Amino acid sequence: MNKVRIGMIGYKFMGKAHSHAYRDLPFYFNLDTEPVLQTIVGRNELEVKLASEKLGWHSYDTNWRRLLERDDIDVIDIGTPNHTHAEIAIAAAEAGKHILCEKPLAMNAEEALKMWKAVRKAGVVHMISHNYRFVPAIQYIKKLITEGVLGEIYHFRAQYLQDWIMDPQFPLVWRLRKEISGSGTLGDLMSHSIDLARFLVGEFKEVTGMMNTFIKQRPLGEMAGGLSAQLSGEQLGKVDVDDAVAALVRFENGALGVFEASRFAKGNRNGNRIEINGSKGSIRWDMESMNTLQLYSEDDPAGMQGFRMIHCTEDVHPYTANYWPAGHIIGYEHTFINLMAEFMRGISTNTSPSPNFEDGYRNQLILDAIDKSSASGEWIKIHN
Amino acid sequence: MNKVRIGMIGYKFMGKAHSHAYRDLPFYFNLDTEPVLQTIVGRNELEVKLASEKLGWHSYDTNWRRLLERDDIDVIDIGTPNHTHAEIAIAAAEAGKHILCEKPLAMNAEEALKMWKAVRKAGVVHMISHNYRFVPAIQYIKKLITEGVLGEIYHFRAQYLQDWIMDPQFPLVWRLRKEISGSGTLGDLMSHSIDLARFLVGEFKEVTGMMNTFIKQRPLGEMAGGLSAQLSGEQLGKVDVDDAVAALVRFENGALGVFEASRFAKGNRNGNRIEINGSKGSIRWDMESMNTLQLYSEDDPAGMQGFRMIHCTEDVHPYTANYWPAGHIIGYEHTFINLMAEFMRGISTNTSPSPNFEDGYRNQLILDAIDKSSASGEWIKIHN
Amino acid sequence: MNKVRIGMIGYKFMGKAHSHAYRDLPFYFNLDTEPVLQTIVGRNELEVKLASEKLGWHSYDTNWRRLLERDDIDVIDIGTPNHTHAEIAIAAAEAGKHILCEKPLAMNAEEALKMWKAVRKAGVVHMISHNYRFVPAIQYIKKLITEGVLGEIYHFRAQYLQDWIMDPQFPLVWRLRKEISGSGTLGDLMSHSIDLARFLVGEFKEVTGMMNTFIKQRPLGEMAGGLSAQLSGEQLGKVDVDDAVAALVRFENGALGVFEASRFAKGNRNGNRIEINGSKGSIRWDMESMNTLQLYSEDDPAGMQGFRMIHCTEDVHPYTANYWPAGHIIGYEHTFINLMAEFMRGISTNTSPSPNFEDGYRNQLILDAIDKSSASGEWIKIHN
Amino acid sequence: MNKVRIGMIGYKFMGKAHSHAYRDLPFYFNLDTEPVLQTIVGRNELEVKLASEKLGWHSYDTNWRRLLERDDIDVIDIGTPNHTHAEIAIAAAEAGKHILCEKPLAMNAEEALKMWKAVRKAGVVHMISHNYRFVPAIQYIKKLITEGVLGEIYHFRAQYLQDWIMDPQFPLVWRLRKEISGSGTLGDLMSHSIDLARFLVGEFKEVTGMMNTFIKQRPLGEMAGGLSAQLSGEQLGKVDVDDAVAALVRFENGALGVFEASRFAKGNRNGNRIEINGSKGSIRWDMESMNTLQLYSEDDPAGMQGFRMIHCTEDVHPYTANYWPAGHIIGYEHTFINLMAEFMRGISTNTSPSPNFEDGYRNQLILDAIDKSSASGEWIKIHN
Repeated sequence: MNKVRIGMIGYKFMGKAHSHAYRDLPFYFNLDTEPVLQTIVGRNELEVKLASEKLGWHSYDTNWRRLLERDDIDVIDIGTPNHTHAEIAIAAAEAGKHILCEKPLAMNAEEALKMWKAVRKAGVVHMISHNYRFVPAIQYIKKLITEGVLGEIYHFRAQYLQDWIMDPQFPLVWRLRKEISGSGTLGDLMSHSIDLARFLVGEFKEVTGMMNTFIKQRPLGEMAGGLSAQLSGEQLGKVDVDDAVAALVRFENGALGVFEASRFAKGNRNGNRIEINGSKGSIRWDMESMNTLQLYSEDDPAGMQGFRMIHCTEDVHPYTANYWPAGHIIGYEHTFINLMAEFMRGISTNTSPSPNFEDGYRNQLILDAIDKSSASGEWIKIHN
Repeated sequence: MNKVRIGMIGYKFMGKAHSHAYRDLPFYFNLDTEPVLQTIVGRNELEVKLASEKLGWHSYDTNWRRLLERDDIDVIDIGTPNHTHAEIAIAAAEAGKHILCEKPLAMNAEEALKMWKAVRKAGVVHMISHNYRFVPAIQYIKKLITEGVLGEIYHFRAQYLQDWIMDPQFPLVWRLRKEISGSGTLGDLMSHSIDLARFLVGEFKEVTGMMNTFIKQRPLGEMAGGLSAQLSGEQLGKVDVDDAVAALVRFENGALGVFEASRFAKGNRNGNRIEINGSKGSIRWDMESMNTLQLYSEDDPAGMQGFRMIHCTEDVHPYTANYWPAGHIIGYEHTFINLMAEFMRGISTNTSPSPNFEDGYRNQLILDAIDKSSASGEWIKIHN
Repeated sequence: MNKVRIGMIGYKFMGKAHSHAYRDLPFYFNLDTEPVLQTIVGRNELEVKLASEKLGWHSYDTNWRRLLERDDIDVIDIGTPNHTHAEIAIAAAEAGKHILCEKPLAMNAEEALKMWKAVRKAGVVHMISHNYRFVPAIQYIKKLITEGVLGEIYHFRAQYLQDWIMDPQFPLVWRLRKEISGSGTLGDLMSHSIDLARFLVGEFKEVTGMMNTFIKQRPLGEMAGGLSAQLSGEQLGKVDVDDAVAALVRFENGALGVFEASRFAKGNRNGNRIEINGSKGSIRWDMESMNTLQLYSEDDPAGMQGFRMIHCTEDVHPYTANYWPAGHIIGYEHTFINLMAEFMRGISTNTSPSPNFEDGYRNQLILDAIDKSSASGEWIKIHN
Repeated sequence: MNKVRIGMIGYKFMGKAHSHAYRDLPFYFNLDTEPVLQTIVGRNELEVKLASEKLGWHSYDTNWRRLLERDDIDVIDIGTPNHTHAEIAIAAAEAGKHILCEKPLAMNAEEALKMWKAVRKAGVVHMISHNYRFVPAIQYIKKLITEGVLGEIYHFRAQYLQDWIMDPQFPLVWRLRKEISGSGTLGDLMSHSIDLARFLVGEFKEVTGMMNTFIKQRPLGEMAGGLSAQLSGEQLGKVDVDDAVAALVRFENGALGVFEASRFAKGNRNGNRIEINGSKGSIRWDMESMNTLQLYSEDDPAGMQGFRMIHCTEDVHPYTANYWPAGHIIGYEHTFINLMAEFMRGISTNTSPSPNFEDGYRNQLILDAIDKSSASGEWIKIHN
């Protein structure tokens, strides 16, 4: 068993999700590599120390650069705010570390391209954490499409709807500040839908987009992301990212895409949904009931046609045999476990499983195009 | 086009449903007989006159016996409270009238047997109005079972749940008085489930039952059913029928049945549901979304198995081609239109389509057994 | 009771739906006017004669112009292909007839404006047959929005998905020929979604669209629409309308809209769906289960929040008290009955209920803009 | 942090589930005790050694009795076949070990009573592993009932449906042999439903039951449970437990219960469902979508009433704040983590959280009564 020693930067939501996945991976999967929770990094020493204990890391540090110099760190896992991804990833690549980076890969395609070039040059293994690709149902949809069950793809529609910032008193957290996050729902949510679309349908040809910020000012009180804000909570700051975004898409293969993401869709806590229509069948899927896939197949006999609710918990479904018997569901955290399994396999074979930095770059090209199109009102071609 | 002249007794809920079905039938179906809404009967002249006009009848009467003497009445449609079914039906049969009778057929099996004997002796066409049998999805389930899609049947479970009498101030209407209704949920609701079970699975072998009356006294105020009550609304009367009933069943073919009916199932307005499990597949159906059938078939490829939501609105589904294109649903009233179509075909060919008085009698045998078993606590064999 | 004598032009799908609604209306509604199925019109005498008998009309004619001269025709109901709407409607208005016209109102906004001007000048009552507006659930959504249950509206998304022309051998019917239909899914399907959006959210400010024709040539065999085609079935003709269309929308009130319509969405027979997100709540609705409305309200207590499945069959729901008790569903045809009730009320009070020709015109402005935008790639402002 | 050193007997399905829960518990919960995976026990040394490594135990043993003599074992976790529970548990209690036992507690109520007496006498902490009680939605239902949201309870119905032994070639595993398992679906599945019923509604007053064995002989080939079978796979052995069971129930508080369990319900992989109807509201829940609770409340305004789909992933829902943000689901394994949390709290405070051996005994009284009633055909009173 090869030990793969992780150095993880960031300890909030994604830090928890990644830590758990590293811990749980050996229990469920039989791999020849095993992650070791070596060092967790955060700028606030008290907080990172507590996180280190809680999440099960061997040690902690307050400076990520120190990890790059250590021989006992094989992987840099980047879970920090978006504006730091490029700097860390490029430095990590130059230090010969394998890299797992949270999404979106970068602040823009230019940065993303630099990152991709850096990892290629360094020959390290790299992945981007589009975890939804690793839902068993999604992998099974990929299989169905590859086998031709849906036929030629005509339509891909995706909605990623949340509602956690609808209260106007919700503060100006880092995800609402362009200089830190790059964009709002576009990079945070729609990047996931784009990843699923690229995985399941193929490359984008052109896009036109629309963005909106419904609440344009928010309390500065809890300036997140570790920033030292001198500003008091009473003051308001400008929200300069999108609260919602929508896009029309033409795929290279002729399919039409309709994408929408919003943090202002009341009652949708994490409504990440897709529907694909092909010449022979259709699928529907919703992350809120992630184990269930709806499949319509025209191969069914006349009269017996309909969307079937496939509980993707059978051993024949991707990843499922590692978990529980049929009918026993898995949850959100297992998407990360499956992703980590692929990452470990990649390290073991020195390949970078998709989605990797190339995918992150191509995704970012589309994000940039939607952003630009939303400003100009014009369709933008994607130069793949 | 042969005219079939109807004399209908009763003008409330079922009177409305039957009237509409007679009116609408020729629009949707191409039959060689056509119902004529000849005369509607009720004891209250003012009310029946109004009903006659509203529902579209040519004339009205206050005495059903007069219809039996008329040559221009071919059918007696009985929609009166249960305690009157036998008297009317037997007299109608003796007068040579075809008969459509609301369910349950009678107050008990003895009465039902007399009715069945009377119609057989008279050679008239007879049916009982178990309208749910004529939902396209139900007829399609029958077809699937007949074709072996479900294999050998192991389980039939039925729930018929309502909530319209849960308010303790809801008055002691006729359906809550044993001398008029014979029973409560047993005859009103579970008789429907039993009809579906006999239609889809087969005859019952033995039953054990349980009944309960949750609210044992109710205001007498609105003594329904045409009774002349001297009692004022402040007084309470005894509820002597079941508010809820459940039964375990063994079918002749070895299948197990579990039945439940209640008027105390909050939020279930008309929750008439069944699930059938066979050696090769299963079905689920709920009247509240009556156009949709859920079918599981083990013939589906591994990994692609699941309950499929079949929208029974395709031309290949029973009765559906008479209505609208695929995807355009029909509703409650169409169950009666389909039933009337079968009744008209029966009259045309001088046969009594199932469910007829024989079915009503066999159904009543089961109702009686559940009633008796609920009192004795013992299993009762059904002597088919 | 005032008789309103109808002259209806067209006897296919919509002819059947309208005929049934006129027939059934007096049974369910208590109005002071009653439609009379006076004369049905079609060019093929044999077919229209048969339709007349089947659908229950007193007489038939082969020339709609003759109806305009008759005193015993009060209403012209236009169910013909789209390219004839303007000519018939304008002539009917000039003849002083009330008008019910199928959607889309016209071939373009210019025509629609002429029609609107004609009915206004003539002072006749006019409506456009956007029947989905009259689903009880939709009217109830309107009520909820008006009462502020959803708060400020942020998002409206609509999908209208069908699959009936996916077979490449499906012939070039009139709905696939631009000169007759004006457009494909845009006018046929998305016009309905636009009507719902205008009804529920308000006026459109600007749009950008995307159209596609997946199958560009089809057999000419069954040239529908009463055309005398000399062409044999072996030959192929060009499909010059959209098989699918999508649009991004900004509403006047700041809400964002995402619209999609397609006839290439396998498994969606008549999937007419909307979701609306507001500052206080959300709704979801799908025509395939038209009686059910999903409502999320933040007024629900914490922990008890969720989308509730409201079965819009209670007496408190719009139109429902005319039909059946709670829990007993209605179907597609009842949307037309409800619409006809409004039309009759309009005639009775000499007002033109919404949606009327003004709505048809404003709808057409949007259709035209989406069409134009799909060609130019630019956003188009709607000049309301 | 107090270490609680576990000795676990059994390493199959439940061994995996328990091991994982012990491992994962400290990550998600902040407790003052922490389980240590000290020793795992199995008779087959090779297999238990492999399991020990895979599941993360410090050591393994082939004889459970040795654990009772060790000072470094605080807890005995019993995941062996049912016929061994009593012997192990009683011995463990006498050795002063805390005990977690898989369900059903024993082979019969007599055994269960001895076990309960033993743990009481020894003063050890005891629990029975009815994990479904620890689904957040179930705990939330308990809270709703306690707060009176459902009012007086009228109905409890439960179905626990599976289909994993429907193939007649499926071998005679230990769960199908009465001498090892005590019963079939009764103890394996219905005991869970009974536990939920006792938790949510209260004690049982009387029951009548029905059992059936659909496939009466099966290949002996894979005699599971560690038995040394000399019999070859070609030979058939008798299935002497129930493939399906149903029961009618009267609760002490007057509610009616209808229970059904089957391993012959095709398409139902792990269909553990309940519906509860009370005077003020109803709930529905299905383990296959375990995070979602359906709640109907008559407190909702007229017109806005309906079953709401509550995604029990909010911080206000029991246990949920330990996991992920709202909308991010958990799965089957988390039921065990939550259960282990309660068990650890129990050890910490020297109390035996419900469900404990008393619950197991009371549950077993009901199981025995259903078994006996199924043979005699009579109602059996439960002597609580």
